[in-house]
Amino acid sequence: MNTEGLNISKEAFYGIKGYKYAGVSCGIKKSGKEDLTLIFSEVPAIAAGVFTTNKSKAAPVLVDLQSIKNPATRAVVINSGNANACTGKRGMDNAKKMVELTADVLGVDKSEVLVSSTGVIGVQLPMEKIETGITKAVSSLSADGGDAAAKGIMTTDTREKKITVKVNLSGQEVTVGAIAKGSGMIHPDMATMLCYMLTDAAVGKGMLQQVLKETVEDTFNMISVDGDTSTNDSVIALANGTAGNVRITEKNEDYTKLLEAFKAAAEAMATEIVRDGEGATKFLKVNVINAPTREDARVGAKAIISSSLVKAAFFGEDANWGRVLCALGYSGADFDPGRVDMQFTSNKGVIWLVKNGEGLDFDEAKAALILSETDIEIVVDLKMGEYGAAAWGCDLSYDYVKINGSYRT
Amino acid sequence: MNTEGLNISKEAFYGIKGYKYAGVSCGIKKSGKEDLTLIFSEVPAIAAGVFTTNKSKAAPVLVDLQSIKNPATRAVVINSGNANACTGKRGMDNAKKMVELTADVLGVDKSEVLVSSTGVIGVQLPMEKIETGITKAVSSLSADGGDAAAKGIMTTDTREKKITVKVNLSGQEVTVGAIAKGSGMIHPDMATMLCYMLTDAAVGKGMLQQVLKETVEDTFNMISVDGDTSTNDSVIALANGTAGNVRITEKNEDYTKLLEAFKAAAEAMATEIVRDGEGATKFLKVNVINAPTREDARVGAKAIISSSLVKAAFFGEDANWGRVLCALGYSGADFDPGRVDMQFTSNKGVIWLVKNGEGLDFDEAKAALILSETDIEIVVDLKMGEYGAAAWGCDLSYDYVKINGSYRT
Repeated sequence: MNTEGLNISKEAFYGIKGYKYAGVSCGIKKSGKEDLTLIFSEVPAIAAGVFTTNKSKAAPVLVDLQSIKNPATRAVVINSGNANACTGKRGMDNAKKMVELTADVLGVDKSEVLVSSTGVIGVQLPMEKIETGITKAVSSLSADGGDAAAKGIMTTDTREKKITVKVNLSGQEVTVGAIAKGSGMIHPDMATMLCYMLTDAAVGKGMLQQVLKETVEDTFNMISVDGDTSTNDSVIALANGTAGNVRITEKNEDYTKLLEAFKAAAEAMATEIVRDGEGATKFLKVNVINAPTREDARVGAKAIISSSLVKAAFFGEDANWGRVLCALGYSGADFDPGRVDMQFTSNKGVIWLVKNGEGLDFDEAKAALILSETDIEIVVDLKMGEYGAAAWGCDLSYDYVKINGSYRT
Repeated sequence: MNTEGLNISKEAFYGIKGYKYAGVSCGIKKSGKEDLTLIFSEVPAIAAGVFTTNKSKAAPVLVDLQSIKNPATRAVVINSGNANACTGKRGMDNAKKMVELTADVLGVDKSEVLVSSTGVIGVQLPMEKIETGITKAVSSLSADGGDAAAKGIMTTDTREKKITVKVNLSGQEVTVGAIAKGSGMIHPDMATMLCYMLTDAAVGKGMLQQVLKETVEDTFNMISVDGDTSTNDSVIALANGTAGNVRITEKNEDYTKLLEAFKAAAEAMATEIVRDGEGATKFLKVNVINAPTREDARVGAKAIISSSLVKAAFFGEDANWGRVLCALGYSGADFDPGRVDMQFTSNKGVIWLVKNGEGLDFDEAKAALILSETDIEIVVDLKMGEYGAAAWGCDLSYDYVKINGSYRT
């Protein structure tokens, strides 16, 4: 990824012109923590979205799939603690009601409000609490509310996830910010990945959707905690044009710079979700290089990072390269098994394990030292072309099973 | 499955006319246990095979993919303890050498011998030991050697897997027998599923391949221990025609009966592999019914049985139906999320969890009692058509992670 010319602040979500935020508590979570977030654009923004491919889509996802097409968007309302998924017609009515309540209190049109939910599946939303929360959130809206907003979308994430990226487009500074939540499923029904990406850039709606699509492909779609695609996964982008840059309406240099800013923000959010994955003790990056096509590199990297056997081996700090080749083999990627080279690297060094598809005699003590680190990179060189792709994941630990095997209550 | 008219003996592998077997120890396994199996047909048999789709195919699989086309087959030689996978040109030479040695000692043509290996990946075969083993196996061949043969293909399976099925074809009794090994990966590189299905039926080569293909689709291809497809997976069928039945050359009634016998044998082997899966504490059957097509039922059942989240929930005896619907949702199966019904059943009773896509208020104590059993069935009714499919798997336990996270040595 090219981060040249980007000013990245990983611990903040602020300074995106023309937005206000709130994160409040309205009693959906038993813990009393923040459980309702509101994002508001002071001027009409345009929106783009990428939603779960799961056929069992949650009610708010079904609502947003329609609303995202509208020409103007002013707000996104999000509750945590209840996913409003598998809730039937009543769930759909409640998702629409959340939109209407938010629009009413804000004084905007209901066509201008998006909605998300995350939390327990199969339980109806407590609408009285939601209504109270929306009123409270609207009265709390503030340009400094970004941190509270990041907290309000968390379920069992152990820490909030936020980032701000500044980029110069034809002489004008533009800001891209993002907040996200992952699937730290200590309460095991809460598996949703949500991310909200805001920018003050002036950009056409089609261009914003294209930026978001390309961004998601290389970031959120390349992480795996456990291979399950949730009913609620959503990445929503808003752009309100208040930065005053020359409006982007074609794939020019400014488009590329904005895309790089989006990718930097999204990669930070995606990898942070993996680091905060349930039970994770290792952060793994798989780099498939010199593939004949980009798609071959992508499917290969994704299969390796998703393999339970590969993940368990890294938990055990075992240099079990055969499992990596095995996962590559069933991935569907085009490659020649007799040509592959492989190395594992970490801050403790580099070790070559495979040359031309055959295992090398390697120093087990050195391998163990390298794998004792938390951050490990697996490099698989197909020597077939010039395309590469990265995927990120975590190991499979006792705690993953413990967390996900425990009772829902 | 229709088992009417089949005489099934689950604890034996005997009485298939015209075959001899041996299982001997030649020192590949450090434990000194049986590690070389030989299957021999006294008359030329025809062979059919279904092999791993993994692109990183082991050397013996590459050899068999050619030899399986030959018109006559007399023997299969199999070693355990070493997979001869990711071993390059030397591995290919060694696989061919195993075939030649076996053909020489048996006095048959090398085109008539198939070969398999299972065990550690990336290590060259100890050819001197293999050569000694082949000589020993040929001199031990016996019609009573079936049990020894079943032992010789095991890696870390906790028990041998064998079955014999008798069926009457147009007045003539025919026998189908099978031995198999699973992926009880206490030694974690040993992930291969192997099965050898022998019959004395007279059947055309194309018909036998068709019987095997249909059988594998409904049995071995519907089990999942951890979703990883090995480099060595093979199911090989031999038919030597010594039963004296009317030769099957078309899809007539005898074809259907033989297919049912193959399916009964293969389902027993496949489910036994799952029961012996590493760390498994539960045996799970997923039954997707009333799907619009057979393929929809298959992919839905397979996605549910393969989900780490579903598997971990059953380990924890948690009636987490949302995860089942979620897996069905991303499976690619065609269904209407608003129509699905779901129940869990075991020897302790039946509990309904979902009606028309919505969660029911259910008795948690009753659910816990049902899930406390070892054998559990998940029934998902799509109410969209008349097709169904079953898939079998096990839960995801601490021991799975322990076994697969431990060092190779």
